[in-house]
Amino acid sequence: MVGSVGNGLLDLGGREKVEPLPKEFDPEEIVDSLLHSESNIVGKEEDGTSRKIVLGRNVHTMCLEVKEPEADDEITGEREAYMAGVLARYRRSLIDRTKHHLGYPYNLDFDYGALIHLQHFSINNLGDPFIESNYGVHSRQFEVGVLDWFARLWELEKNEYWGYITNCGTEGNLHGILVGREVFPNGILYASKESHYSVFKAARMYRMECVKVATLVSGEIDCTDFRAKLVQNKEKPAIININIGTTVKGAVDDLDLVIQTLEENGFKDRFYIHCDGALFGLMMPFIKRAPKVTFKKPIGSVSVSGHKFVGCPVPCGVQITRLAHINALSSNVEYLASRDATIMGSRNGHAPIFLWYTLNRKGYQGFQKEVQKCLRNAHYLKNRLKEAGIGSMLNELSSTVVFERPKDEDFIRQWQLACEGNIAHVVVMPNVTIEKLDYFLRELLEKRSHWYQEGTISPPCLAAEIGEANCLCFSHKN
Amino acid sequence: MVGSVGNGLLDLGGREKVEPLPKEFDPEEIVDSLLHSESNIVGKEEDGTSRKIVLGRNVHTMCLEVKEPEADDEITGEREAYMAGVLARYRRSLIDRTKHHLGYPYNLDFDYGALIHLQHFSINNLGDPFIESNYGVHSRQFEVGVLDWFARLWELEKNEYWGYITNCGTEGNLHGILVGREVFPNGILYASKESHYSVFKAARMYRMECVKVATLVSGEIDCTDFRAKLVQNKEKPAIININIGTTVKGAVDDLDLVIQTLEENGFKDRFYIHCDGALFGLMMPFIKRAPKVTFKKPIGSVSVSGHKFVGCPVPCGVQITRLAHINALSSNVEYLASRDATIMGSRNGHAPIFLWYTLNRKGYQGFQKEVQKCLRNAHYLKNRLKEAGIGSMLNELSSTVVFERPKDEDFIRQWQLACEGNIAHVVVMPNVTIEKLDYFLRELLEKRSHWYQEGTISPPCLAAEIGEANCLCFSHKN
Repeated sequence: MVGSVGNGLLDLGGREKVEPLPKEFDPEEIVDSLLHSESNIVGKEEDGTSRKIVLGRNVHTMCLEVKEPEADDEITGEREAYMAGVLARYRRSLIDRTKHHLGYPYNLDFDYGALIHLQHFSINNLGDPFIESNYGVHSRQFEVGVLDWFARLWELEKNEYWGYITNCGTEGNLHGILVGREVFPNGILYASKESHYSVFKAARMYRMECVKVATLVSGEIDCTDFRAKLVQNKEKPAIININIGTTVKGAVDDLDLVIQTLEENGFKDRFYIHCDGALFGLMMPFIKRAPKVTFKKPIGSVSVSGHKFVGCPVPCGVQITRLAHINALSSNVEYLASRDATIMGSRNGHAPIFLWYTLNRKGYQGFQKEVQKCLRNAHYLKNRLKEAGIGSMLNELSSTVVFERPKDEDFIRQWQLACEGNIAHVVVMPNVTIEKLDYFLRELLEKRSHWYQEGTISPPCLAAEIGEANCLCFSHKN
Repeated sequence: MVGSVGNGLLDLGGREKVEPLPKEFDPEEIVDSLLHSESNIVGKEEDGTSRKIVLGRNVHTMCLEVKEPEADDEITGEREAYMAGVLARYRRSLIDRTKHHLGYPYNLDFDYGALIHLQHFSINNLGDPFIESNYGVHSRQFEVGVLDWFARLWELEKNEYWGYITNCGTEGNLHGILVGREVFPNGILYASKESHYSVFKAARMYRMECVKVATLVSGEIDCTDFRAKLVQNKEKPAIININIGTTVKGAVDDLDLVIQTLEENGFKDRFYIHCDGALFGLMMPFIKRAPKVTFKKPIGSVSVSGHKFVGCPVPCGVQITRLAHINALSSNVEYLASRDATIMGSRNGHAPIFLWYTLNRKGYQGFQKEVQKCLRNAHYLKNRLKEAGIGSMLNELSSTVVFERPKDEDFIRQWQLACEGNIAHVVVMPNVTIEKLDYFLRELLEKRSHWYQEGTISPPCLAAEIGEANCLCFSHKN
C-alpha cells in the first residue's frame, strides 16, 4: 500500500481531492523500466525520502507466443504434441510453486474432484443473483444458498439483505464504497493508510474526496487521528472503510471504537461503514475474543474473499449489503430479464458452486477447527523467528506473521513472500503446515547467517514498522 | 438497454449529468416484487408510456441451502451422497439447458479436456500482466501471448500497447471509458442509446456527463444526431463508445463516419474512442467487406469477450489500449511487486490458458471458417423466418437474427431468448447448427399457429423496431 500511493499518483495523505492525470508523473520512466529490462526496479519518492520498489520480472521476455497452425498440423499431430508439452511443463512448475508458496493468503488445500464434470459448462450468472435471467446455464440456486449462509453469519435477515458472489476482494470494495457513495453522494471517504490499494483506487474511479487516516504500530486505524480528521470535515457525511485484517500486517480495525468516534463527533445517522474482510472476514467469527462483525451494528456492507481462507481455484468473493441500499443503485435490464446491481456484467458461475461445496462439506465447525490451526501455526512461526533472533510481530487476532525482509530477492521470489519496505510477511493458511514452516525456517536461517555474517552484523531496525518491543536489531535487542 | 435506463435511474436521454440516488424511485416496489413473488414483472415508465418488463423468477424460492454437517456425517456418508445427488441433477439440467440455448452470444462448443489437470490450481494473475508479481502460481506467460495476438489483430505494435484479460465485456468497457476519462478529465461520454448497459453504468460510477445519441433502424449510431449533439458541446472533449455489434440487434457503428464527424466539427485531437467489440470484435476482422477496427485509426481502446465467439467455460474478455494512456492510470503496488492498472485486483489465471489454447488450436484460419459458418447459418434462419411470415432482420455484418417476440414466456425461457419490447433475437454462434435451428423453427411455428390462430390474427407491427421493409404484420405484409 505504501508503495501504491507513493508515486505521487494517488497521494491522498491528509485531505486531498482525487485528481486525475497528475502532472508530476513521468510515463517514460515506467515505459522504460517495463519494456526494456528483465527486472523492474522503480525509484520512488515517499514523504520526501527516496526508496526503491522492487517490481517483478518483465513477462514479455518469457511469454508463450500464439502460433498459427500449419496446414498439415492435423495430419502430423505436431501442434497437439507441442501444446501438450507446454502444458505438462507448466503443470510441473505450478506444482513446485504451490509447494513453496507462503506470502499470499490463499488456502491452496482443497479438493474439488467431485465438480470436475461441471468444468466444461459455460456457467454464467449475469445479472442479479436473486432474479433468474433468460440465460439458463447458471448456478444461481447455489449462489443464493451461499449468500444466505453469509448473511446468517453476519446476522442480517433473509428479507433484509442483498449480495452477490464477486470476482475478488477488490470487486467487493468497489461495490461497498459505491453503495456508500450512492447513499451519501457528497460523503468523504475515510480509510486508514494501511487499507488495501483498491480502496484508494475506488476513490479515484468514483471521484470521491478521500481522507487517509494514520495507523498504530499494529496496523490498526488510529482513532485519535480519525477523530481529528472528522472534526475538520463536520459538514460532510462520512463513508468509512474498515479493515478486518489489513493486507500487510493482518491488523483488525476496532469497529466499535470507530462507531463510537463517529457518534460522539456529530455523525450519528450520517455515516456508512464498509467492512473490508477480504481475509479475516471469514476467520474472525470463529475466534471467541474477536470483536464481532455484525449487521446489528450500524454497518452498510461486508466483503470477504472466497479464494483466501475458504480456498478456491478461481478468485472470488462474497459481498453482503442491506437490501434497502441496493435498490437505489440498481436498474432492470430487460435484455437479461434480470437486474443490474453488480459491478461486473457476466459473472463466473463456477465460483458459487466451489463455495457451496466447501461450505457444505466443512460447515461452521470445520472452519472453526481450521482457524484454530492457523492461529496455532502462526504463533509457532512467530516464536521460532523470535528464538532465532529475527524481529517479528503477530497481531492477536491474526495469522499474518510480519518479520524482517529477507535480503535476497531470489529467496523472496522462491517463497513468494509479499514485502513492503523493511518487512515481509507469511500468511498462515490451512495448507501451511508445521513441516512447511520448518522447511522455510531452515532455509531462511541458513541464508541469513551469510547475510549478517553469523550474527556479527546487525539486521535492520524494524522499530518503526513493528514497534521497539518486537525489533531485534542491535540497539533494541535487550 | 431500453429497460435498463427506463426506470428513471439512469435516464441520460439528451444531455444530463449523472445523478446519484434519484428521488422518484420507490425501493418498495422492487423489494416487493423481488422477495415476495415467484415471478417478477415490473411496471416501467419509458418516455411517458408505460411498459411491463418481464423479469426472471425469484431464485430465493428454489435455492440450495447450505446445511451444517451432522457429527456422524463422515461415518454415514450421507452428506457426500446428498451432495453427489444435487450435483448430478444439476449436471443433467445443464446439459438440457445448453442444448436449448439460443439467445445469448456464447459459443458453447469447446473442448478443454487437455486442461483438466490444471483446474485444481489456484492460478491468479493479480496485478499487471507484464510485470510478474511475487505470487508464483500465475499464468502471465499465457496471458501475454494472448494479448500479443490480439494487439497484432488490431495492428498495434508490441511496445506500444498495453492490455489484460478481463472478467467480462463489462470490465473492458469500464476500463476503456476510465482510460478515456483520465485522458480527458472533463470529457463528455457519448454513446448510442443501443449501447450495452455497462456503458451507462460506467458514466454513473465515474460521475461523467453522458449524452445519449439516437440510432438508425439498423441499430447503428445516427451520425446526424451525433453531429447535432457534438455541436451543442463544443467546449468539452468527447469520449465516444463505439459498438462493434450492439447487444440486441448486432449493429456495427460506422467508425470511419464517427471519426469524420468528430474531425469536421472541431474535435481533432480532442476525442477518445473506446470500441466495445464484446461480440463482433473478434468476428469482423474475418469478414472482408467489414470496416476495419485498427489502432492505425485514432482509437484509444478495444475490448472483446472471450466467452462469446471464442467459447470459454468462464466469462472473460480481452482489453487492448495504448501504452501511453495506461501509464497515467496505473500505480505500483509494492506489496504485489507489480502494478495496479486493472479494474479488478486478483485475476482469474485459468481464463488466459483457455484462450491461449483455443487461439493456438484454431488460429486465424480456424476463426475465419467459423465466422463464415455463423453468417451462413444466420442467413438461413432469417430466410426461413421470412418464408414463414415472421418479421425479422439481419444486419449485414452480423449473425444476430432479430425477430418478432414469441408470445409465450415459457417458450422464451425454454429457448433462453433475449427479448426487448416486441423483439427477440437469436445469436448464431459456432455451436448453433442448421439442425438446432430447424428444431427451434419447428417448435416456434407450431406454437405460433396457435398464438395467431393459423394466420387469421395479425402479429404485432415491428416497423418501429426493424423497419417497414422487414415487418410482416397485416399492414406491412405487401
